[in-house]
Amino acid sequence: MEIQSLLDSKRKLALTAEPPGPVVLSSRIRLARNLCDYPFPGWAKETQRRDILTMCEDAVAKIPEMEKGMVFEIDKLSELEKQVLVERHLISRELAANSQGAGVLISRDQACSVMVNEEDHLRIQLVNNGFQFRKIWKTIDRIDSGIESKLNLAFSQELGYLTACPTNVGTGMRASVMMHLPALVISNQMEKVIRAVNQLGIAVRGLFGEGSDASGSIFQISNQQTLGEAEADIIKRLSSVLNTIIEQEENARAKLLENDRIKLFDKMGRAYGTLQNGHLLSSAEAMNYLSLVRLAIDLNIIPEGERIRVDRMFMESQPGHIQYNVRRAIESDQRDVARATLLREQLRELPPLNFDNFVDS
Amino acid sequence: MEIQSLLDSKRKLALTAEPPGPVVLSSRIRLARNLCDYPFPGWAKETQRRDILTMCEDAVAKIPEMEKGMVFEIDKLSELEKQVLVERHLISRELAANSQGAGVLISRDQACSVMVNEEDHLRIQLVNNGFQFRKIWKTIDRIDSGIESKLNLAFSQELGYLTACPTNVGTGMRASVMMHLPALVISNQMEKVIRAVNQLGIAVRGLFGEGSDASGSIFQISNQQTLGEAEADIIKRLSSVLNTIIEQEENARAKLLENDRIKLFDKMGRAYGTLQNGHLLSSAEAMNYLSLVRLAIDLNIIPEGERIRVDRMFMESQPGHIQYNVRRAIESDQRDVARATLLREQLRELPPLNFDNFVDS
Repeated sequence: MEIQSLLDSKRKLALTAEPPGPVVLSSRIRLARNLCDYPFPGWAKETQRRDILTMCEDAVAKIPEMEKGMVFEIDKLSELEKQVLVERHLISRELAANSQGAGVLISRDQACSVMVNEEDHLRIQLVNNGFQFRKIWKTIDRIDSGIESKLNLAFSQELGYLTACPTNVGTGMRASVMMHLPALVISNQMEKVIRAVNQLGIAVRGLFGEGSDASGSIFQISNQQTLGEAEADIIKRLSSVLNTIIEQEENARAKLLENDRIKLFDKMGRAYGTLQNGHLLSSAEAMNYLSLVRLAIDLNIIPEGERIRVDRMFMESQPGHIQYNVRRAIESDQRDVARATLLREQLRELPPLNFDNFVDS
Repeated sequence: MEIQSLLDSKRKLALTAEPPGPVVLSSRIRLARNLCDYPFPGWAKETQRRDILTMCEDAVAKIPEMEKGMVFEIDKLSELEKQVLVERHLISRELAANSQGAGVLISRDQACSVMVNEEDHLRIQLVNNGFQFRKIWKTIDRIDSGIESKLNLAFSQELGYLTACPTNVGTGMRASVMMHLPALVISNQMEKVIRAVNQLGIAVRGLFGEGSDASGSIFQISNQQTLGEAEADIIKRLSSVLNTIIEQEENARAKLLENDRIKLFDKMGRAYGTLQNGHLLSSAEAMNYLSLVRLAIDLNIIPEGERIRVDRMFMESQPGHIQYNVRRAIESDQRDVARATLLREQLRELPPLNFDNFVDS
């Protein structure tokens, strides 16, 4: 089963790739591109969508970065398989909901995915652990050029890349990071941060983009503007805002440790103890507890070497992964049992919390 | 320090005495007795109270069961020492509040305590682990006869023993048990049980008698009537009610395991995980979690051999014990830190929960 090989190879990747950072989990850039000679996916007829899919698949598969990658046609995937791809951020919810002529190409290391016939003909995305825009931009720019050399893309000298939705016109670029901001959440500062950041044209969303909630204190933060600014400038402006947020999170952590250290230790301890011993865990509860365990790693209460395992638990305790693990759709309460079982077993392998090792910031 | 030797010897006792049962923790009989020739403590002048204390101390100290026991005069004890004795049920809150001429004699094994100048001149109490009225009655009757042979007690041929409060006249006896009823509490049946039991002239109270709450799902259940019924009949009637409550608790457990097994396992797991990893624990929260850990022992999820340790934790996480441990009065929030530290250390020595060992009832 192909999806399974993807899950397995992700495991391998997670153990060898650059580690995710304490505040910035990962960075991502995506480019929206469209073919000249076809209507946008929303307007294209089914036969046209199929033509577009074939054409794009052929072109993208030839890019060196996509060598030995995977190709999925969305209408051939089960609901569960689609959900797993969504939870891994390899496809969007929108693509998963598309019925015909939609597909995705995923690079062997799962860093790059190219969706075909989502809102635009092509959505090229590249992700990397940590705060890595420069590196990502360099690679995705090369991938984009490779694709451009093989396909006739819709580009206007005046506007730049043309896209189905005007909010993407221009660079067609969205740069984003996943940030883990537990201290800002605990100290009730997130609302203030979101308001301030919004005013700078930067969007803050939950783990799954627009409309999703921020369980696990994980936020997706991205640029809004795509027009009238060069890619490098967008990234520079976004990075400067992100650096401010990192600083605010670090300040909030320092303040919590100064004023409410025992309360924070208590929260982390209870989270760890509940994950290690609970028998019923909802997805939101699991995320929130894992968030506190992740914070314990940042504070050296759990060894740094366990970060990859904990980040994997974030992934694997999501509803789709829980169900895919047993290869069938199961009800919410049964998922809570399966999730608790998985987390109990995983947490048993963590060492006990060691507050003596705590590193003051 | 004498109180310390009491705490230490209790530890020894706990390791050698008959083990407490799964539902009935301990049984207790107390007898109210008064001297003929003195006013009741509430009416006696201070000099009279001092005379009574000396006289009673001399007489009781000579009883073989009290050999090498301890004697405390209440006004020589610190607030913390009094609180520790109250938490160990060796003196009542009322005696602790008495200022002058009040005292207590405690047998070497702490099974017997005789309060002097509480509400009555003498309150003789004998306690034993498990459901043990017959054994206790045999011993306390012998102690009572010994005291009666040395002191001139107020006794009416018509009414029996005379007491300060009419509710104790007659036998002057109160028989009670401490019961652990977590399943009746979890399944919201305690109110119904209390109502039914009250109608039979049996009182149900929290851990510290009248007006105290039932944290840890521990209830003190005792006879109300002392007049017009022989001691043996009172005990027989009480025992029959207690057997019914035991049966109801067992049924409630069976039902919980049948219908809500995972929820129950979850509760026990979270309790255990929180005790093992928390950094702030109120007294009520600690009691309630220890109650679930005790239930896990009843279900063989934790080995039976740990019961004594868990029962000791119930005792030692009470506010007085927590403070006595550091030899000074500390504020509630600091007690919560000290309690969590104590319980974390103790729980670390328990084996992990083993649900595979779970014994179905």
